[in-house]
Amino acid sequence: MKKKLLAVTGIRSEYDILFPVIDCLRRDPGFDVKLVVCGAHLSEWHGKTIQKIEKDKFTIADRIDSLFMTDRDTQRAKAVGTLICGLCQTIEREAPDFVLVVGDREESIATAIVGNYMRVLVAHIGGGDPVFGHDDDPVRFAVSKLAHIHLAMSEQSAANLRRIGEENFRVFNAGNPSLDNIRSTPPVPIEKLSKAVDFDISKGNYIVLIKHPLSSQKQRTYSQMQTTLRTLERFCAETDFKVIGIYPNTDPGAYGIIKAIEEYADKPFISFSPTLPRDIFINLVRNARCLVGNSSMGILEAPFYKLPVVNIGNRQRGRLNAGNVEFVAHQPGKIKAALQKACFDKNYRKAVRGIKNPYGDGKTAQRIKKILLTIKPDENKWHVKKRLC
Amino acid sequence: MKKKLLAVTGIRSEYDILFPVIDCLRRDPGFDVKLVVCGAHLSEWHGKTIQKIEKDKFTIADRIDSLFMTDRDTQRAKAVGTLICGLCQTIEREAPDFVLVVGDREESIATAIVGNYMRVLVAHIGGGDPVFGHDDDPVRFAVSKLAHIHLAMSEQSAANLRRIGEENFRVFNAGNPSLDNIRSTPPVPIEKLSKAVDFDISKGNYIVLIKHPLSSQKQRTYSQMQTTLRTLERFCAETDFKVIGIYPNTDPGAYGIIKAIEEYADKPFISFSPTLPRDIFINLVRNARCLVGNSSMGILEAPFYKLPVVNIGNRQRGRLNAGNVEFVAHQPGKIKAALQKACFDKNYRKAVRGIKNPYGDGKTAQRIKKILLTIKPDENKWHVKKRLC
Amino acid sequence: MKKKLLAVTGIRSEYDILFPVIDCLRRDPGFDVKLVVCGAHLSEWHGKTIQKIEKDKFTIADRIDSLFMTDRDTQRAKAVGTLICGLCQTIEREAPDFVLVVGDREESIATAIVGNYMRVLVAHIGGGDPVFGHDDDPVRFAVSKLAHIHLAMSEQSAANLRRIGEENFRVFNAGNPSLDNIRSTPPVPIEKLSKAVDFDISKGNYIVLIKHPLSSQKQRTYSQMQTTLRTLERFCAETDFKVIGIYPNTDPGAYGIIKAIEEYADKPFISFSPTLPRDIFINLVRNARCLVGNSSMGILEAPFYKLPVVNIGNRQRGRLNAGNVEFVAHQPGKIKAALQKACFDKNYRKAVRGIKNPYGDGKTAQRIKKILLTIKPDENKWHVKKRLC
Amino acid sequence: MKKKLLAVTGIRSEYDILFPVIDCLRRDPGFDVKLVVCGAHLSEWHGKTIQKIEKDKFTIADRIDSLFMTDRDTQRAKAVGTLICGLCQTIEREAPDFVLVVGDREESIATAIVGNYMRVLVAHIGGGDPVFGHDDDPVRFAVSKLAHIHLAMSEQSAANLRRIGEENFRVFNAGNPSLDNIRSTPPVPIEKLSKAVDFDISKGNYIVLIKHPLSSQKQRTYSQMQTTLRTLERFCAETDFKVIGIYPNTDPGAYGIIKAIEEYADKPFISFSPTLPRDIFINLVRNARCLVGNSSMGILEAPFYKLPVVNIGNRQRGRLNAGNVEFVAHQPGKIKAALQKACFDKNYRKAVRGIKNPYGDGKTAQRIKKILLTIKPDENKWHVKKRLC
Repeated sequence: MKKKLLAVTGIRSEYDILFPVIDCLRRDPGFDVKLVVCGAHLSEWHGKTIQKIEKDKFTIADRIDSLFMTDRDTQRAKAVGTLICGLCQTIEREAPDFVLVVGDREESIATAIVGNYMRVLVAHIGGGDPVFGHDDDPVRFAVSKLAHIHLAMSEQSAANLRRIGEENFRVFNAGNPSLDNIRSTPPVPIEKLSKAVDFDISKGNYIVLIKHPLSSQKQRTYSQMQTTLRTLERFCAETDFKVIGIYPNTDPGAYGIIKAIEEYADKPFISFSPTLPRDIFINLVRNARCLVGNSSMGILEAPFYKLPVVNIGNRQRGRLNAGNVEFVAHQPGKIKAALQKACFDKNYRKAVRGIKNPYGDGKTAQRIKKILLTIKPDENKWHVKKRLC
Repeated sequence: MKKKLLAVTGIRSEYDILFPVIDCLRRDPGFDVKLVVCGAHLSEWHGKTIQKIEKDKFTIADRIDSLFMTDRDTQRAKAVGTLICGLCQTIEREAPDFVLVVGDREESIATAIVGNYMRVLVAHIGGGDPVFGHDDDPVRFAVSKLAHIHLAMSEQSAANLRRIGEENFRVFNAGNPSLDNIRSTPPVPIEKLSKAVDFDISKGNYIVLIKHPLSSQKQRTYSQMQTTLRTLERFCAETDFKVIGIYPNTDPGAYGIIKAIEEYADKPFISFSPTLPRDIFINLVRNARCLVGNSSMGILEAPFYKLPVVNIGNRQRGRLNAGNVEFVAHQPGKIKAALQKACFDKNYRKAVRGIKNPYGDGKTAQRIKKILLTIKPDENKWHVKKRLC
Repeated sequence: MKKKLLAVTGIRSEYDILFPVIDCLRRDPGFDVKLVVCGAHLSEWHGKTIQKIEKDKFTIADRIDSLFMTDRDTQRAKAVGTLICGLCQTIEREAPDFVLVVGDREESIATAIVGNYMRVLVAHIGGGDPVFGHDDDPVRFAVSKLAHIHLAMSEQSAANLRRIGEENFRVFNAGNPSLDNIRSTPPVPIEKLSKAVDFDISKGNYIVLIKHPLSSQKQRTYSQMQTTLRTLERFCAETDFKVIGIYPNTDPGAYGIIKAIEEYADKPFISFSPTLPRDIFINLVRNARCLVGNSSMGILEAPFYKLPVVNIGNRQRGRLNAGNVEFVAHQPGKIKAALQKACFDKNYRKAVRGIKNPYGDGKTAQRIKKILLTIKPDENKWHVKKRLC
Repeated sequence: MKKKLLAVTGIRSEYDILFPVIDCLRRDPGFDVKLVVCGAHLSEWHGKTIQKIEKDKFTIADRIDSLFMTDRDTQRAKAVGTLICGLCQTIEREAPDFVLVVGDREESIATAIVGNYMRVLVAHIGGGDPVFGHDDDPVRFAVSKLAHIHLAMSEQSAANLRRIGEENFRVFNAGNPSLDNIRSTPPVPIEKLSKAVDFDISKGNYIVLIKHPLSSQKQRTYSQMQTTLRTLERFCAETDFKVIGIYPNTDPGAYGIIKAIEEYADKPFISFSPTLPRDIFINLVRNARCLVGNSSMGILEAPFYKLPVVNIGNRQRGRLNAGNVEFVAHQPGKIKAALQKACFDKNYRKAVRGIKNPYGDGKTAQRIKKILLTIKPDENKWHVKKRLC
């Protein structure tokens, strides 16, 4: 009897984390893997990344529209409600043994709620990882209280899960699946990368910029992004650097960031893409001088690349820092100083090359497969939490 | 400026806990109190208890249908989704400073999610109270991870909340508001009680029965309820006792319980009501010889009444027992022995009369009012959790 | 290439009309037939008739909870909204060539809306049949304006559809599929029937009663049903007749009817069932002295049985009457007179035996199959209505 | 007792039609007017036009997110479902005497369904107006079958409504409320207009372009819009004309149109705006040489302006043409010829100046007010349709 697993994904960044895991599972005869695709994946405005999933030939159990076209505060909550209603239908029909989700987004909490009430085991990648200041943070921990199998990304996160009362046997340190992507992605020639972003990056003098809204500062995303871009413009003018930027996610406040991006769209120092093929993206980061913005990549993946990161603002505050991240406020002077250090301070760059990466070895997918293989989905101990605190 | 508070309630038992709190708050000039009424309150099949709320003259911000007419596993999850969608609309319009919820039901998690994403402070009564084996249990703890203000019912629950990483300043031991109801309800003459249940209870030889489904044993609710009723029938025949029964809540499995109830509906030893006026109900319990079934009342309120409880089955397992609760399996012999002990064992009954009630002093509403008065709803520390584990 | 057809059903009475059609289609190699099951089918309180569908071995594409547990006016509208949201997901996944619906209920309008916007041909059984005073009536005609293929039950209905501007080539007089059920159902011995309803009907002196709420008189359903039952009680006492009753549908007001039914549940003159096996039901009607209440059966099926009908109240007003229906108000005297006539007036009963049935010959399923076989689902003329008025 | 009216609006173009009516009603002491705002009004991507409504100081009963961020076929159907669920809540709370909707969009059918089931009178502006080839067209007629009061825009539309079986007393020829806007909008100096669109239009040599997707040709919107823009570019180069363009509505296919617009965004011959203040827009149209595209404005408003219209493609096919509209296919040669005729053919332009406008006199709001004043909302004749075909 194959184990049926249903993974739920709502956005490209999350799919990239899921991919190595579900790709590994579907190649194993013990698993039957399907996907529910929702949220930004179905939005032309966000690159309609469901096409990538279709190209990867996953079986799609259902497509569920859940992203409302608004930047108002209702957007995410109503997405959760809408997704729950749709998921009930899918999960009743598919009757999976496991549902699999990542992190702290709407689809994670929606799936965890449905899994809990419909008594399907919820496997959760990325629990126990504390961040502060974003609506997502408490969501991640609420998901952990509902999830049955914790696939933490680091030993520290696993310890956190045990500390909040999760039973030991449910908690695994599996590592960050994203690193599997990086490990397995072959180098792409610089010329091809340059062509992909329409930008000559052959001299290696470029920075990758990814900036998402921070919900508790939603009103300021536009001006904060302007500050960031203005500072980068000056830095690039002085240093002959360039910037490769990625569009933000769908959280409220994204509209302000996009607005600022569009004002800078025509400037020669910068090139923005809504989304990029994974191999291109990974190689762009691999070869970049540093990463700027506030993406979780800076925390969770950059240590694997041994890449310096300038994290602007409070998103990612509180997270385990391997030693490669400088946190700076939205102040031009501080941003510039941190860029200077990240790009040109030889000692610092050498130190970053020597850091220890706490997020695993790029073999997380295999590890998760083994974990799921040992679990009997109808064993009661997995379903009923005998300890909750 | 009045503080705007929106309480969300979906079922009579929960409204009874909320009542002393919201009644106390609305009498204070510092608060503007409204209710969202959903779920079983709007169901004729469950006594349409919204009429009670209307009679209590609360301002109803919105009525939101969320209870689906099915006993299938989708019922509760889809209720959460439907309620979230409706609540977004209400909360955006009302823009409350606080949303207030109780316990571990659909409306609690739905409200906590909306409060989190829409940045409204979530005050949660009854967090930190561990129970095992029911879908509700992880939900209660997920709500705690999302809630901003924890109004625990006992010191032990408060300690549990701190242990799972909630910041100290958010955690209050407020006691169980239900006890305020009991404390403030004057005695009702036995004749009036007898009339209300159409049953002579003047000799005090009666038992109150409340039994809800346990989700992890949903398939067995019908036969388990039959066992309970058959055993009670025999016990009553031998002891000349009677049983006053209350209908179950709306959880999946309720249909099986109702089916068994209806088979016993015409038997003279028992009288069932879908719902009863609060003063009648409290006085019925006050005068009862013991409480049977698996209601949380046995744990959370019976110690205040100094009432022996026979808890049949696993619902309520793991909860703080003040010493008045005997847990028994669904076995006629064990149930009967426990009934015998609860009703006739003088030493045991004396011990129960002497127990210490850990759930407060019946002055919880005032305590919660004082807590909420001190909180500035736009102070950032309440909104952003700087510690999550 | 098989033609994919998705039928949507929400209640037993509707499924009985659909059954001969979808059963005929699935036996044809040209069709791939699936069902969406929603509404009352999923309710234990309504006999959980999805079990019947499962027993009939239809492929169920999705189960969609859409029936809210309330008798309030929001119930039906919110059911339509909820169903639409769920259907989008199903129809995108299944990509049927046709969706098939019956009549004027929530599932009909929900499906017609989704079919229209998602460009799937909507085949509608039962359009063009005017009834007055019920919320359903305008819905039936709204469905017709959205549907692409009209499978009318009578020539008069077909003419009505043409009159409201539907293009001729879309309109077919297919007859009433229910008659196929009747035609193909073999007789059941009286003893078996008697046993099924726990009631001796061997003398043929019994009446079948089916009464649904009329939305425009929702507040009065309880007292109207009481009047009906009281009058029947007297009639039965005088004539030694009995009554076999069926529970009402789910429309608001149903609760009042059920309440009245429960008051009469223990009376020996009457026996109520929430639902009955189709062969039992058909044979009960076949052998009944007359039909009482306000079911559409009295209009649409009784002429085939040559059965006299006493239609109490305004539901069914305006519908094509083959001559077998007496319309009476909710007045005991008038009801009794009509019962008298229907049961004992030899001339009238003879006239009814001679009426012409306008609803087809019981071979509707084959006729619909032929119609659908000739339609090319991607031909533009079916999709774009060039005449709308 | 004031009559309570709730108007539902989802997009700027519709609000512009509603505005004169609701503005007139709220100034009358006999009415209490509120709005439900949904759909594109709440989208930053569509100019967040709720801000305009707030500035106009209407009381907003509820904001309901209903626009999903996708260009897939599910978008509109799921919007209807989501809106229905939200509206139930609003309409139960507000208990209006009338709901008011316009035309053929998602909010119209959603409101008509809720009004029908919740027994609130539905007043519908713009029924009986046949158009072909768009998903909206059958929707408009379905709304008419559900609506109780028909406020048709022309005598021909009123006649169509009677023909499809609507009772005479429900059908009024009220005219097009948009014309009230035009009539009451004072001229704006050309310099101010030029500034508003950042474009010198002082010579009057400019065209207004509005093009929406046609659902039955959704796949082709991008290439069709490219053809249109390429042809306009050439026409402008040859004639020294300019183009003022407005963004499309939210229908599936809009994304393709926007994509084409963005490719032409930087060309000097054209200037695009997502939305414009009403006085600016009306004056731009007033002074334009002609209108191009496929907006209903060309049919319903241009006759009042005496403005020649080039309608490209099949949207608006079948509609009453006052004589000012040339229908052309998506062929550069045909488009160019029609532009030539509309802009330079003196005889044709003279004929257009002389046409008779069938859509009223710009005093529609007063007319609708008088109609609604005479209607008693609890009179049964308005609620129960005694004729449906």
